[in-house]
Amino acid sequence: MDISIDNITQGPDEELMKYIDVANIACGFHAGDPSLMLKTVRLAKANNVKMGAHPGLQDLFGFGRRRIEVDPEDMYASILYQVGALKAFLDAEGVPLNHIKPHGELFFYMQRDAVIMDAVLRAAAHYKVPVYACKNQMQKEMCAKYGLPFQEELYVDIDYDLQGKLVPVAKSKKATPDMIYQRILECALKDERDHNEGGVFRIGFDGQPFSICIHSDMPSALENVRMARKAVDEANVKPFSK
Amino acid sequence: MDISIDNITQGPDEELMKYIDVANIACGFHAGDPSLMLKTVRLAKANNVKMGAHPGLQDLFGFGRRRIEVDPEDMYASILYQVGALKAFLDAEGVPLNHIKPHGELFFYMQRDAVIMDAVLRAAAHYKVPVYACKNQMQKEMCAKYGLPFQEELYVDIDYDLQGKLVPVAKSKKATPDMIYQRILECALKDERDHNEGGVFRIGFDGQPFSICIHSDMPSALENVRMARKAVDEANVKPFSK
Amino acid sequence: MDISIDNITQGPDEELMKYIDVANIACGFHAGDPSLMLKTVRLAKANNVKMGAHPGLQDLFGFGRRRIEVDPEDMYASILYQVGALKAFLDAEGVPLNHIKPHGELFFYMQRDAVIMDAVLRAAAHYKVPVYACKNQMQKEMCAKYGLPFQEELYVDIDYDLQGKLVPVAKSKKATPDMIYQRILECALKDERDHNEGGVFRIGFDGQPFSICIHSDMPSALENVRMARKAVDEANVKPFSK
Amino acid sequence: MDISIDNITQGPDEELMKYIDVANIACGFHAGDPSLMLKTVRLAKANNVKMGAHPGLQDLFGFGRRRIEVDPEDMYASILYQVGALKAFLDAEGVPLNHIKPHGELFFYMQRDAVIMDAVLRAAAHYKVPVYACKNQMQKEMCAKYGLPFQEELYVDIDYDLQGKLVPVAKSKKATPDMIYQRILECALKDERDHNEGGVFRIGFDGQPFSICIHSDMPSALENVRMARKAVDEANVKPFSK
Repeated sequence: MDISIDNITQGPDEELMKYIDVANIACGFHAGDPSLMLKTVRLAKANNVKMGAHPGLQDLFGFGRRRIEVDPEDMYASILYQVGALKAFLDAEGVPLNHIKPHGELFFYMQRDAVIMDAVLRAAAHYKVPVYACKNQMQKEMCAKYGLPFQEELYVDIDYDLQGKLVPVAKSKKATPDMIYQRILECALKDERDHNEGGVFRIGFDGQPFSICIHSDMPSALENVRMARKAVDEANVKPFSK
Repeated sequence: MDISIDNITQGPDEELMKYIDVANIACGFHAGDPSLMLKTVRLAKANNVKMGAHPGLQDLFGFGRRRIEVDPEDMYASILYQVGALKAFLDAEGVPLNHIKPHGELFFYMQRDAVIMDAVLRAAAHYKVPVYACKNQMQKEMCAKYGLPFQEELYVDIDYDLQGKLVPVAKSKKATPDMIYQRILECALKDERDHNEGGVFRIGFDGQPFSICIHSDMPSALENVRMARKAVDEANVKPFSK
Repeated sequence: MDISIDNITQGPDEELMKYIDVANIACGFHAGDPSLMLKTVRLAKANNVKMGAHPGLQDLFGFGRRRIEVDPEDMYASILYQVGALKAFLDAEGVPLNHIKPHGELFFYMQRDAVIMDAVLRAAAHYKVPVYACKNQMQKEMCAKYGLPFQEELYVDIDYDLQGKLVPVAKSKKATPDMIYQRILECALKDERDHNEGGVFRIGFDGQPFSICIHSDMPSALENVRMARKAVDEANVKPFSK
Repeated sequence: MDISIDNITQGPDEELMKYIDVANIACGFHAGDPSLMLKTVRLAKANNVKMGAHPGLQDLFGFGRRRIEVDPEDMYASILYQVGALKAFLDAEGVPLNHIKPHGELFFYMQRDAVIMDAVLRAAAHYKVPVYACKNQMQKEMCAKYGLPFQEELYVDIDYDLQGKLVPVAKSKKATPDMIYQRILECALKDERDHNEGGVFRIGFDGQPFSICIHSDMPSALENVRMARKAVDEANVKPFSK
């Protein structure tokens, strides 16, 4: 079970690196720039943190969280461009590309639009790495079509709704470090996650490995990550007991 | 002897492709965007045209022709980013990266600043491809240091000064297709080039292969390239006679 | 009856200026930059051409023609910013702001979303100038609410559908200069416009003055404008005969 | 004697507003965007803080602190654009433009290049407001030429050199809040400022009013401003005693 951080370079990076397994590195379209990317790749390498490309919509003003309608061929080109740019830094530092993790609105866009998901996965297929995503049957099938591994991802600092769908950052309730700790343990050990109407639902990982995603730009990011680390270390030695 | 085109995607590309050997593809910092890059890579591939990365200063407003002071580490990161982005399209299309050709002011910046040249070549060294440049002793030595081949380049649609230095586009006299034809033959067969004070100087290629650079954004670009093709085809079968 | 040009600075501007009454000047978000804006304002002033602000979505990559979801307060701020920037040039040259004409997707966004239209008109109300638009009852009522004059606009180089709604550039058939000539006369004299299913509909201007919008970035822009000028000059002296 | 803040919107703005007299608002070229500008204008208005335009070089990546060579006409256009954009927000909120304060490298560019200073002042002349600057004879004379008031400005969180010239942020020693307090009092009461070689020099304000500039993006910005407020309030009631 891994902990990954989105948009590293937006928060207290040097401290965060000590607690995480995976960093999702913004590639310049919604955040990040070449110098920040190089610095972050070196920092992650020094901390033995695995790295994924974190492509986003072309929207610095809106931090990639606004809806933009993109032509599927433009999307395919945009993903290649962003992942290729990150890969240059990874190659220069002699570390592999671990995965691709679409950012913000691009993540939601993929989940609701099969043509966009196809464009993203078609670009990812050139790199033969998993595309991190929430539980999504459509994506599972498309990954199989492109020969890509599927990696389940759990969010713990934003909400899920009653249908088990992710709620955007702006509409989620603030999560405390303690809530994050509880959520990871319940998900890892009981396959359960709370939803935003007060109950729980079955997340469906069934004891399989999953990645935990935490936002680096939340005010309590560092404490969130520390508690997530604690939960993951405990869960990794406890038996799955659903 | 090759003909290369700078900033392809700025001119009558489909026609131009028939006459050139090499295309320098802008990578999004001074011109270009992911969709244009992908389209151009496919077009060049279909015409058996070799491709180089054409990185530039981060200056869309000034088309990369304004002076910007760049920290050497930022420059190194910026070159990796741009070349990496292009390489993603080349890899996806299964064609190799042929070379790197710095654009506009970046080209001049390298020629006058050893620290910037070092940053660019250090980035290029990860790709093991030549960096196209004008005759420049400093660059020759640095290429040797990084194990990079050195490739001489001749400009024919802008001027050289009395010292054999290139004159920027904005300060050069307009070149006609006929002038371009003459310049190539004289350079290839006699090792001579005219300068902007009315005489000629020895360009110093000494019968070795060189690349000819033509701008795609000049009004007569297509006719320039046609005449350059004619000159190159003639020169390639004539004896060097200096 | 006026002829206006969208996105002047994209086409053969100096020639176009001789035939038009009004120029819509892009303000840097989807096209244009400060230097182009200043140059165009001076050119229009020298030709006695009236000027309007042509604000667009923040999308240079997509030329303001892609869908972007914008928060209404961000929209209000974005319109103020763009119109204010243009007004600086108009004030410096001592010419008035004639109107505001939303560009591309922003135009369509306003037509379908009352909250966005309200945000645009609320910004426009600070300038007390008309917002050019197609026949739209919602906009008429909102203009009245903000005390803004309503100015009908006719497009002649793109299509209308059976319901009298405008068809985006990319989905319209190519219009010849002769078609443009006919369309203006029929609209001015008979209140009729052809739609994209082969018939005509009543445009509803009823002999009142309207503005004719022509795109400067179409290949035949100059000839389109010349024929529009001819039609307008003829229509302005002929009786309305519906 | 006023306290002004550069690049408000980069720091703890709501708190800072309580202690300052003047805010310099970034206009989107080196920092800022329409929504931030509107929010900041409203916040400053609510705190009775006067507002100036803070135009910068077109360089979001380098926060306007890198050298860029700009054509004087482009500079003139760029200043008009940025000031005009801010003025739209001020007009909408019914508050006046107090001054213009060039940011970062643009500030230094003006100080060393008379043609650029002329371009900036020529743009400012349309607004008839002072351009804030350090003691600079050239600027004084040019302001007189354009009928612009000259307003002396003192920096207290970065260094001056032996010649009384300002040292850029990156090359200055860190200033503590106590140092800022001392510097203001010594400058206000004794006309003296310390330089970066250990001594003091005569700043030359001679008891005339001056504005104090503090950076909002320094880690101790809030404490810096609090101590500056204290110093200013004390100095404003003490006699000048040089």
